[in-house]
Amino acid sequence: MNINVSPKKNPSRAPQTGDVTVGPRMGGRKVYESGSLFPHIRVPHRQIDLHPTADEPPVVVYDPSGPYTEDAPAIDIARGLGRHREAWLARRGDVEQVADPRQVKPEDNGGASGAHLAPAFDDSARPVWRAREGRPATQLEYARAGIITEEMEYVAIRENLARDAARATIRDGEDFGASIPDYVTPEFVREEVARGRAVIPANINHPELEPCIIGRNFLVKINANIGNSAVLSHVADEVDKMVWATRWGADTVMDLSTGRNIHNIRDWIVRNAPVPIGTVPIYQALEKVGGVAEDLNWEVFRDTLIEQAEQGVDYFTIHAGVRLPFVPMTAKRVTGIVSRGGSIMAKWCLAHHRESFLYENFAEICEIMRAYDVTFSLGDGLRPGSIADANDEAQFAELRTLGELTKVAWDHGCQVMIEGPGHVPMHKIKANMDEQLKHCGEAPFYTLGPLTTDIAPGYDHITSAIGAAMIGWFGTAMLCYVTPKEHLGLPDRDDVKTGVITYKLAAHAADLAKGHPAARLHDDALSRARFEFRWEDQFNLGLDPETARSFHDETLPKDAHKTAHFCSMCGPKFCSMKISQDIRDAAAAQNDAGGSLAEAEKGMQDMAEKFRAGGGEIEVKV
Amino acid sequence: MNINVSPKKNPSRAPQTGDVTVGPRMGGRKVYESGSLFPHIRVPHRQIDLHPTADEPPVVVYDPSGPYTEDAPAIDIARGLGRHREAWLARRGDVEQVADPRQVKPEDNGGASGAHLAPAFDDSARPVWRAREGRPATQLEYARAGIITEEMEYVAIRENLARDAARATIRDGEDFGASIPDYVTPEFVREEVARGRAVIPANINHPELEPCIIGRNFLVKINANIGNSAVLSHVADEVDKMVWATRWGADTVMDLSTGRNIHNIRDWIVRNAPVPIGTVPIYQALEKVGGVAEDLNWEVFRDTLIEQAEQGVDYFTIHAGVRLPFVPMTAKRVTGIVSRGGSIMAKWCLAHHRESFLYENFAEICEIMRAYDVTFSLGDGLRPGSIADANDEAQFAELRTLGELTKVAWDHGCQVMIEGPGHVPMHKIKANMDEQLKHCGEAPFYTLGPLTTDIAPGYDHITSAIGAAMIGWFGTAMLCYVTPKEHLGLPDRDDVKTGVITYKLAAHAADLAKGHPAARLHDDALSRARFEFRWEDQFNLGLDPETARSFHDETLPKDAHKTAHFCSMCGPKFCSMKISQDIRDAAAAQNDAGGSLAEAEKGMQDMAEKFRAGGGEIEVKV
Repeated sequence: MNINVSPKKNPSRAPQTGDVTVGPRMGGRKVYESGSLFPHIRVPHRQIDLHPTADEPPVVVYDPSGPYTEDAPAIDIARGLGRHREAWLARRGDVEQVADPRQVKPEDNGGASGAHLAPAFDDSARPVWRAREGRPATQLEYARAGIITEEMEYVAIRENLARDAARATIRDGEDFGASIPDYVTPEFVREEVARGRAVIPANINHPELEPCIIGRNFLVKINANIGNSAVLSHVADEVDKMVWATRWGADTVMDLSTGRNIHNIRDWIVRNAPVPIGTVPIYQALEKVGGVAEDLNWEVFRDTLIEQAEQGVDYFTIHAGVRLPFVPMTAKRVTGIVSRGGSIMAKWCLAHHRESFLYENFAEICEIMRAYDVTFSLGDGLRPGSIADANDEAQFAELRTLGELTKVAWDHGCQVMIEGPGHVPMHKIKANMDEQLKHCGEAPFYTLGPLTTDIAPGYDHITSAIGAAMIGWFGTAMLCYVTPKEHLGLPDRDDVKTGVITYKLAAHAADLAKGHPAARLHDDALSRARFEFRWEDQFNLGLDPETARSFHDETLPKDAHKTAHFCSMCGPKFCSMKISQDIRDAAAAQNDAGGSLAEAEKGMQDMAEKFRAGGGEIEVKV
Repeated sequence: MNINVSPKKNPSRAPQTGDVTVGPRMGGRKVYESGSLFPHIRVPHRQIDLHPTADEPPVVVYDPSGPYTEDAPAIDIARGLGRHREAWLARRGDVEQVADPRQVKPEDNGGASGAHLAPAFDDSARPVWRAREGRPATQLEYARAGIITEEMEYVAIRENLARDAARATIRDGEDFGASIPDYVTPEFVREEVARGRAVIPANINHPELEPCIIGRNFLVKINANIGNSAVLSHVADEVDKMVWATRWGADTVMDLSTGRNIHNIRDWIVRNAPVPIGTVPIYQALEKVGGVAEDLNWEVFRDTLIEQAEQGVDYFTIHAGVRLPFVPMTAKRVTGIVSRGGSIMAKWCLAHHRESFLYENFAEICEIMRAYDVTFSLGDGLRPGSIADANDEAQFAELRTLGELTKVAWDHGCQVMIEGPGHVPMHKIKANMDEQLKHCGEAPFYTLGPLTTDIAPGYDHITSAIGAAMIGWFGTAMLCYVTPKEHLGLPDRDDVKTGVITYKLAAHAADLAKGHPAARLHDDALSRARFEFRWEDQFNLGLDPETARSFHDETLPKDAHKTAHFCSMCGPKFCSMKISQDIRDAAAAQNDAGGSLAEAEKGMQDMAEKFRAGGGEIEVKV
């Protein structure tokens, strides 16, 4: 495996292929599945083959890591990933090349120049697309028109995790009124997208994308935030963070860069991203006006939307729900407004004594986003930043507004997600989901945690994984990760990995509890491996095989121990798993049988019946 | 601070004071509060003083760490902690010295000898106590007799966290039928103990103990497991693990040692333990019969109970619910029986075709445990070891038996807790609590996690913290921690700390959600510190100030940044917290006021009213 070398801290050095982590992940290999409606689509999975003694089929898991984790990937960071969706767009014929795409301006990079300017990605050969007049442009518009797109079949195949449609599935869960099917068909995807209950964020200018679907009737997704800031900024770091985050399982990545070089960094990220990229355009707009919120205006924001839509950003966080009358509702809060976008808009509203220009120009925002199929992520600018502020008037007033805006965006043919909190104690989490479902027409909910206590800085990936798992179970479609550095500093590589793995496990716990038909296959395979002392299978089936293996090796490093029928917790004489096996064997032997599981069961049942028949209920002597 | 030096790996070296971690924890100091009924009792808290600019009272948190975290503690590991409870026992006059205490036998230490024998703790001067004939011995018996003990006032003071009885409290939670009072009185403690709804594990032979209470109407407690095993064994390590675990917040510690030297290691631990110590006596009994489960018998088990009760163990896990007819119910499981105690008893039952000797001799077990006030922790020997096995017939059959045994133990005057799972997906967690409440008469529930998915070895502290927080909210009284090494290896110092902090945050999330009246004071203080950029206060109020500080310093190491009104996430120009402050200030200024919060609120409300009065509802242009 090609392990990343630490990139040089020189902003003007162009990222190189060696800066990003490539090669297969331990214990699994990339496989591709073709489409039926569209035979040319190639849907990736990660396949984990088990030890031959297991006599079990491989376990197939979701894989958002793109070509980077192929065996010998042909990666060239300077060229970007292959633009395989261009053929899909061409077939549909609903887009046209923008004759005069927006040109990069100095303010797009915060005025950075010379050695301070991050190198530009050379995409002079990339056509810029927009919807043709009167044609469907968004996945929502196609779905409503009854058209199944390549993206729809792609995500349908992806969600089924290589299961056969006829395969018996375990349906054991509580889904709170969701409609999770046994098997996902392209038509089911179309229906879910048509009614706004799921989104496929897929900007027509992001042809490198491997589409994914986000909705309460699909596998719960996770997002990883990356991004430089005024304090730290290196292009190669950011590109590798994106690759690194998807390697471990991030389904989408948000580039939350602030400071200089925003445009150029984003170019490198989008061109090399197999996953949907999200941004918060108001951050860049603010940079363009020198960081002074009062100086923001509709024109600079509009220009930023077009800039980023033409680059290929797949979803935009738009804080259009931060309305002037809601701002005073935050004055009594313990932590005021903690959303950056929310506080910028609140400051603008108060400074001008005017309603938000995002709210007032929302229809035009819809028109722009529709033309490129940029999905809305309606931002929760008034989310609570502390347990004390959870579920307050300001938060729910904004949420109702987001519901109103959802319908406007839908009317314009735009796909919509709704962002949610934040900091919420456990007993107030479900109300968030219920209010969201009630007001936002089942548009996918996308929450940040929530953190279930404020008292553990340094461990907020965990305080928030508790809330994330719960709200995912209740119906949230995507969980935005929180790293151990939350509230304290910028995440490094290790923090990104820890955050992603933590959120993968929270999302999977939610899938299990919802009763997703494919979820338990993974747990059961791992547990069988554990019970049968197939250590290598246990490591490989885990979310982080390297860490599992290294933890095991700290206590029992020898290779022989990988096949030992005991572990370090109890030692060889004292192993409960071994005793369970012995019990089965003993029962089977008593039945004069050969020791198979079925025979063991019969032997033990006979014994129990004999016991009961003999009046075996024993009284406790008191 | 005296940082631990790594102890020499020589089992025959006696632990020394330098082996354990002593000195105050960062950011707080130990304070003691005296009793009213019993003025001589000294109840410890940890007090966190805030920066003078905060103008806020100190935050007082629960502190189970014992004298080790005093400023200049007089610790002598070879002598053990002070035996302050001896005076309490003497005053009550209900105990008598055992004339011929049980003498240590070679098999108590697994036959270890010479350089393999761990050194004995010299407690020749310690009297061994048992209840006098016809006198109350247990906290339950005292409580039923209407007697408030020193232990009861001690835990009442402890639970109130130095709050004043008259202080207004925040009651915001969902407690699922619990009866959490605004303020804990000694009489409330007595009532809860009398009805079996709470326990104070406090062996009369553990006079060094600082008592704590475990019950659904009190703060949720956490347990840390330590213990050597056949693979690794060093006395000093184990003593320091106990000290280390309580330093970070473990309320009780279970010594799960197997292998040799069990007796001697336990002596060192109990004599130096400020917290209740729990054990699983069947582990040592098994060692005494050479590790062959079939060779176990009532006599060797009974002897072990007396041995450990006279040493001062505060609670015993007794797997008396693993009955012969339940064993076949586990044959179809994915992971069989995963409890070590459970599998030992199951094997014994099947080998002898007999009902469990623990179940048959339960009344005598009660008599023994009553005489020393050893609390029952009725073990869940049939807990599920995988998601697939959760809430099955075997598990719930055992739970109902534990309910039956609870009533037997109560009839004998014994205190009782009930152990719970294990591996349980989120949607099946509440049923565990509901069944436990239904069958076990509200005896405190004490669960291991539960883990909400099987697929994350290396991260099971997190998969289980999700389940632990939830079941704690639902009413579980104590959460047994899980470390990152679960399923993989033995926890080291770092793992113990990570496990404890993770479970402290889960327990606190549960306290918040239950609406414990003192819980939110801590969160709110930390969030105010965060909002006001009091970095030092934010670190100190966190569960792990060292980690929070070091994470912050990675990005912004300079001391000046500790008072900076921004952080590394957004940088100086772009800080949402700062913008919120600006909003308040701006609003206040417009009100021609001086800028106080009250004035700011008024200013903002005036603005909002003006806005609404002017017909400020703005339509979205569609």
